[in-house]
Amino acid sequence: MSGLMLNEDNSHFFGSREADKMTIEGLKELLSHYASAQMKEILFCPNAMRVNVKPDNPYWQPIWAGYDSDGPDSQLLFKGSETDNAVNRPRRWVHNAWLLNQKGIDPYEIWISYAREKNISPWISMRMNDVHGAHNPDSFMHSDFWKRHPEYRRVPYRKMIRWPDAALDYGQREVREYSLALIREYLERYDIDGLELDWMRFGYHFRPGAEEQGRKLLTGFMQQVKDFAENISAKRGRKIKIGVRVPSRPQAARDLGMDAVEWSRRGLVDLIVITPFWATIETDMPVELWRELIDDNNIILAGGLELLVRPFPDAKHDYNTPETARGAAVSLLYRGVDRIYLFNYMDSETTMPKGYQEVLDQAGELDSACSYPRRHVITYADTHPPGQPAAYALPAKCDKDRLAEFRIHIGPKPTSGTSQAILGLGKDGNTDTEKLNVWVNGNKCELAQTPDIPTHPIVHKSAAFAIPDSVLNNGYNLIEVLGENGEPYEILWSEIRIDPQR
Amino acid sequence: MSGLMLNEDNSHFFGSREADKMTIEGLKELLSHYASAQMKEILFCPNAMRVNVKPDNPYWQPIWAGYDSDGPDSQLLFKGSETDNAVNRPRRWVHNAWLLNQKGIDPYEIWISYAREKNISPWISMRMNDVHGAHNPDSFMHSDFWKRHPEYRRVPYRKMIRWPDAALDYGQREVREYSLALIREYLERYDIDGLELDWMRFGYHFRPGAEEQGRKLLTGFMQQVKDFAENISAKRGRKIKIGVRVPSRPQAARDLGMDAVEWSRRGLVDLIVITPFWATIETDMPVELWRELIDDNNIILAGGLELLVRPFPDAKHDYNTPETARGAAVSLLYRGVDRIYLFNYMDSETTMPKGYQEVLDQAGELDSACSYPRRHVITYADTHPPGQPAAYALPAKCDKDRLAEFRIHIGPKPTSGTSQAILGLGKDGNTDTEKLNVWVNGNKCELAQTPDIPTHPIVHKSAAFAIPDSVLNNGYNLIEVLGENGEPYEILWSEIRIDPQR
Repeated sequence: MSGLMLNEDNSHFFGSREADKMTIEGLKELLSHYASAQMKEILFCPNAMRVNVKPDNPYWQPIWAGYDSDGPDSQLLFKGSETDNAVNRPRRWVHNAWLLNQKGIDPYEIWISYAREKNISPWISMRMNDVHGAHNPDSFMHSDFWKRHPEYRRVPYRKMIRWPDAALDYGQREVREYSLALIREYLERYDIDGLELDWMRFGYHFRPGAEEQGRKLLTGFMQQVKDFAENISAKRGRKIKIGVRVPSRPQAARDLGMDAVEWSRRGLVDLIVITPFWATIETDMPVELWRELIDDNNIILAGGLELLVRPFPDAKHDYNTPETARGAAVSLLYRGVDRIYLFNYMDSETTMPKGYQEVLDQAGELDSACSYPRRHVITYADTHPPGQPAAYALPAKCDKDRLAEFRIHIGPKPTSGTSQAILGLGKDGNTDTEKLNVWVNGNKCELAQTPDIPTHPIVHKSAAFAIPDSVLNNGYNLIEVLGENGEPYEILWSEIRIDPQR
Repeated sequence: MSGLMLNEDNSHFFGSREADKMTIEGLKELLSHYASAQMKEILFCPNAMRVNVKPDNPYWQPIWAGYDSDGPDSQLLFKGSETDNAVNRPRRWVHNAWLLNQKGIDPYEIWISYAREKNISPWISMRMNDVHGAHNPDSFMHSDFWKRHPEYRRVPYRKMIRWPDAALDYGQREVREYSLALIREYLERYDIDGLELDWMRFGYHFRPGAEEQGRKLLTGFMQQVKDFAENISAKRGRKIKIGVRVPSRPQAARDLGMDAVEWSRRGLVDLIVITPFWATIETDMPVELWRELIDDNNIILAGGLELLVRPFPDAKHDYNTPETARGAAVSLLYRGVDRIYLFNYMDSETTMPKGYQEVLDQAGELDSACSYPRRHVITYADTHPPGQPAAYALPAKCDKDRLAEFRIHIGPKPTSGTSQAILGLGKDGNTDTEKLNVWVNGNKCELAQTPDIPTHPIVHKSAAFAIPDSVLNNGYNLIEVLGENGEPYEILWSEIRIDPQR
């Protein structure tokens, strides 16, 4: 049976709630909201560089270290955070975590035991190398370790271009030891079913060019984690699982040093979550290849959904809707994942504009997700080794002699209803949709009405083409587009929509 | 022990020789030239759509079908070929093949037995779906089957954009049967060690969008071939091997219907050649991933070199030199291929401008190839499923805030001599090489003299940066580039040069 997993991140609850929710009831309320019939596991994340509870170890700091609860918003801890135009949210996060600690409540203990009551398996998810706000050296989010040791960062030899340049270098023993201290604490402290190591926050763990040496070190590190988890498991008399979040493609994961295939072969992991980083949901992750490489049916393979959706990196972000999230989930489930893993999908007030509950109720199983309209949209993979080029299907151009082609995986072909190929055109090209010739799997598709659901904000004009019955395949389908004459078309968006009910 | 394989294609010998070489001596002369100490197998290709000998089966035609040996160059058979400005070469090809047949000489019989004398293993390589000249319906190269049955082609529903649109559709039983007739003939007729099915001429075998159904059909087809080869093997009392040429990436191969991994698991193939199509040599094929997926040490895994070199598709082609071919070979051998497979590297008069013999003498073994200067250049993969986007590292831009990054696999790191990072700049950007900051694996590299070997014809100005000793890694290495100020740089070329001797 498939199902859903959800990651409750380290800032969401504390930053989005008023202080009066910092109670056992307030904590339970959040979890109750997630407890749909399809929700199998929830992974609670207590840390980025700092931890939301008071650590038992001497190396890590709580998020409120240096906080004066009676002081003004302008206190030193929040210096620089006002430039994010969000000083309230940072303070709320810090204050609420501090407040729970003052009250003697460990929110993770509450959530873990309440999850069990709700028949949901509780995990802790540890961010392994988070660099939110790395451009701001004074940010309240930063750890002493990171601030005091610039020599432990990945890129000490030139200026920072991107946040991950400032991530910790797991090629250095001190970094690995520092990280292990918190891993051990989580395993000892919490009565969890599993510990997930979130290597995708932020996905870059070695000096650029040293990924291959890093890969071997990280496999050794995973062995240390596994050994410790086995000790704890033996003490508790039940297995504590180890999970990892890694890049969506086996080659990218390996070449960034996160060799989940090797880890699976050595028996070091029980859960592998394949996922993009953040910029967009990824709708074409090679699940079959992962399955062939992992070759162990006891490992839970999860497909990670991110909240944003972009057709290519320069496009502004939009949010997924229940239709696009279902599309991604249907494809992943059909390709063989055991779970749909929701990341950044945290409660109805803070994530999707509408329809959030539909995702919780339907996106974890093929039958339920296929019963409602779904959209299979073209996106891209956003995480690659340094220097490894990325591929983008969009934007694309076409004219009478130049073909635009889009390969879209839809999971199972529909057995009822209607299907359409949708194209979104940019304003800098031809917009005469009457002169577009569209084929799906070699079958001509006629221009239909304009789509009633919008495509994406960057699209100037969109057009729908009716896909005849029995034309769609299980799995991949190909849209081909030619113009008839005139100036070239600029295609910014492409998708297949399936409505099983009309 | 590693070594070389070489493909002698279907037109080279016949099109490049005078009629007086159409003798047993002339045939042996060609082969003698290839017989270096490192040459393990030669694969002789007798066909594209037509065959260079008179087929024993009634379905295929000889290349001289319709040829009037006494007629003028303007005879019907060569109509359209004059537009290629190459009517002499086509006629020479046709005439020479005809002439050998007139003399009762089967060139493949001669080559096969002479190869054995030279201690080289003889194979036949069959092009499975060649569409050279598909734009010209009258070309002398086309078969009756292809001309009479447009309904058997991949793309009957719209105009041809690229030659492979006109390739045969192996989704149709008639096409598979037609193809099997020649496979059976080769296996019965020639005393070969193996038969290679060259699925990379041209690499597209199914109706666009029907690749997944095609994949299953092609695996069934490969089973038929294997069964037939086993019958022949039993009769001859020795195993006749089956080889395949397939796209360079496992996912691309699978998604185009050429599921070499599955074929290997079913025991249907003894040789897998991973290769680009033609546009460029491919210098970063994922050999490790293939090895993990194939998981059978009895299968020969060969890395295919093509003759041309391009940094990106819009760049004009250049030819590989012994230095660039050695670079590609060293990387592939280090990554674990059993053979370097030479395609379009046919004799010194017709391929590389100079140094061809060096390739035959050195490119098949790591030690010999590493003893001479080698260049590891950035190129790209040229074969992808329809609608699957491709990735290109070049061209790239950089300035003071924008990083250009190049990931280059060099095989084993050098133990002596000098190494350089080379950048080739375009004329449309900044060309002040003094203001370029270059790091290799995080180590600053100082501007050295201008390279003494050119980079590529599209490069306006090139610069060499000295890589300090002990900085290079085995395997992948990372070049990072930032400008200091001024307008952005346009980088069109990037490589690492290693000279072990100075």
